[in-house]
Amino acid sequence: MKKILNEFIGSFFWTLAMVICLLGSAGQFTALAVGGIVMALVFAGGHISGAHYNPATTIAVWLRGKCNVRDVPLYIFAQLLSAAVAALIADSILLHKLGDAQYPKGDALAIIFAELLGTFALVYTVLNVATTKDTSGNSFYGLAVGGIVMAGIFSIGSITGGAFNPAVALGLSISKIVPFSSIWLYWIGELIGGVSAAYAFIFINGKE
Amino acid sequence: MKKILNEFIGSFFWTLAMVICLLGSAGQFTALAVGGIVMALVFAGGHISGAHYNPATTIAVWLRGKCNVRDVPLYIFAQLLSAAVAALIADSILLHKLGDAQYPKGDALAIIFAELLGTFALVYTVLNVATTKDTSGNSFYGLAVGGIVMAGIFSIGSITGGAFNPAVALGLSISKIVPFSSIWLYWIGELIGGVSAAYAFIFINGKE
Amino acid sequence: MKKILNEFIGSFFWTLAMVICLLGSAGQFTALAVGGIVMALVFAGGHISGAHYNPATTIAVWLRGKCNVRDVPLYIFAQLLSAAVAALIADSILLHKLGDAQYPKGDALAIIFAELLGTFALVYTVLNVATTKDTSGNSFYGLAVGGIVMAGIFSIGSITGGAFNPAVALGLSISKIVPFSSIWLYWIGELIGGVSAAYAFIFINGKE
Amino acid sequence: MKKILNEFIGSFFWTLAMVICLLGSAGQFTALAVGGIVMALVFAGGHISGAHYNPATTIAVWLRGKCNVRDVPLYIFAQLLSAAVAALIADSILLHKLGDAQYPKGDALAIIFAELLGTFALVYTVLNVATTKDTSGNSFYGLAVGGIVMAGIFSIGSITGGAFNPAVALGLSISKIVPFSSIWLYWIGELIGGVSAAYAFIFINGKE
Repeated sequence: MKKILNEFIGSFFWTLAMVICLLGSAGQFTALAVGGIVMALVFAGGHISGAHYNPATTIAVWLRGKCNVRDVPLYIFAQLLSAAVAALIADSILLHKLGDAQYPKGDALAIIFAELLGTFALVYTVLNVATTKDTSGNSFYGLAVGGIVMAGIFSIGSITGGAFNPAVALGLSISKIVPFSSIWLYWIGELIGGVSAAYAFIFINGKE
Repeated sequence: MKKILNEFIGSFFWTLAMVICLLGSAGQFTALAVGGIVMALVFAGGHISGAHYNPATTIAVWLRGKCNVRDVPLYIFAQLLSAAVAALIADSILLHKLGDAQYPKGDALAIIFAELLGTFALVYTVLNVATTKDTSGNSFYGLAVGGIVMAGIFSIGSITGGAFNPAVALGLSISKIVPFSSIWLYWIGELIGGVSAAYAFIFINGKE
Repeated sequence: MKKILNEFIGSFFWTLAMVICLLGSAGQFTALAVGGIVMALVFAGGHISGAHYNPATTIAVWLRGKCNVRDVPLYIFAQLLSAAVAALIADSILLHKLGDAQYPKGDALAIIFAELLGTFALVYTVLNVATTKDTSGNSFYGLAVGGIVMAGIFSIGSITGGAFNPAVALGLSISKIVPFSSIWLYWIGELIGGVSAAYAFIFINGKE
Repeated sequence: MKKILNEFIGSFFWTLAMVICLLGSAGQFTALAVGGIVMALVFAGGHISGAHYNPATTIAVWLRGKCNVRDVPLYIFAQLLSAAVAALIADSILLHKLGDAQYPKGDALAIIFAELLGTFALVYTVLNVATTKDTSGNSFYGLAVGGIVMAGIFSIGSITGGAFNPAVALGLSISKIVPFSSIWLYWIGELIGGVSAAYAFIFINGKE
């Protein structure tokens, strides 16, 4: 329960920062806002729940053998729910407006590939900095995870906005920043990216 | 006394950076300036006074049981005083101008909620990275705290400027960036945010 | 083989971020995107392959005595190949466009010197934070390396774009951001910068 | 001699990044470039020479009792010389242009105070993160130092450009970004800031 609450808090602020920035006038600074929040909350909550805040990460950590199968649906439910709540609060309380479908830009293959590549880099980083013996006890795990999210939004995010997270993609849809008809392109890319990162990690590092 | 002096230095520079950036032409880079100063001075002064620099943090750390009740009023007095001094120096010596009430933007509920959410994220992060056994001895506490301040100003700060700190809110009022008639909206949001973060932390982590 | 795969992943994303940003509208934020990706992937892959992702670094680490001579050609081959693949994916799948030779700006001596100085600073940093006993076990190696790449692109990169890496320079040529006729200026500067940083390091620190 | 060479390298790149950015079109990103280079080179060279790269820091570390009096003039000579060389290379090889005296902005008192406050924050941070037992063995010293330089340039730097370092101020004068007739205002502010930070540190922490 306590782990689930921390996952709720993490996905809530990740989605809130992304939605507020894209509805407002943050422009490219969105990447710094979202990267910063992910960095801080991964540092804050890593010791509680592992700080996934992302269904793609939860599935990959489970494939890699460091997440209880029992926790997987609970984590994912909390992540999706909190993202939806964040999107609703952004509209109903904070900004009183919805987006105008500014993303994605590009054809279906570009969208899937962009989310796939961004999520691959994110999950590959998470597994290496937060689940291996070689890097255990380090003080950089949140920085690495926040940094890859920031870098992904600055670069590949020019195509999709840079969700790299099915819960965040849901929040972007609820806020009408991304049309609901495109959300499955995000989810396909994110799932393939997360799963392939897990297998790349296992191939390179073994399961220990 | 030495702890109080360090708190004075920290709140002074936090407020000074915010006021100078908002009176000058820093625009969105304000978030990087303030996040950077908070990061550096939390790293510099954490070992002296805990590096709160923020009445909302001091109250939350006291609720969580890691700040002497005797220190609470002294810390808060030093934080408010130094913020006022910073605002006065910015006008009288450095820039010779006052603001034109550029914040807040939005209705009362949006303002309270924005400061509440930003302060919740900030204090939840502080308590997790600086007051738990699980993360003791880490080298990231200042980075996490500075990062959440930066992220908060980039995102939720589009509504309020992003104080997340009653002392900074006081400085913004003295500099006329925020009208005095709005300051209680900031303070209500910050206090609710800080206190609720303390109870969320205690619920999740226990008091140890 | 596993080390080579990690080198492939690192150089792939370094080049991809650079190419996507320069072909798109990232402008000066390119420095944050590329610095962020290098930081994250150096943290992620340092324990696997040393996380060079850069032929100039591989040669310097070998000169300094911390890379097997047997690995040198394999590392460099993987770095160049992955940079080429990244450039091809950027055009064929993600953005469907090529650059218009926006770099370099300046005469041949300025170009060589800019890449030389940037690569010197990068390799000098890598050798000091990742290959000495004095700093072993630190949690900042990725941050230092990513930070120097970011700083280099912001400053010296106004002349050359800021490759500081022969593999990235190859990717910029394939993407037509830099004309093929200029690539040897980049490579000369990068090789001299990397080799001179190795000898400066050895002179100052000894070979231990 | 090896320490002196490292000080030369550090001040050289600090000044070079600042000059290139201010002569070029980096605008506010100058703060990220200079903060990034300082962060990286403090991490890279801290174990060699203490990584002062700044006469104000050298004097303060000596007052605080952690720098040999014999090293002080050598360090300061290397710092000033390397800053001059950086400014000359920027003009003669890299950019072929000089500045048009864009700084300082404000009256003499504002200039002195701006450099004083920025240097105070910088030196207070350096002494706390790099010379106390309480924080020994940390992995954040470069980040704290680079962060305060970045924050200082974004905020107080709107008045003076943000040198916080007599060697960098010399480089700005040679590059004609700051007129020679103003350099003593920078130097006075920096020396008072550095010396007062040393005494504030000694008062708060003792000499150990």
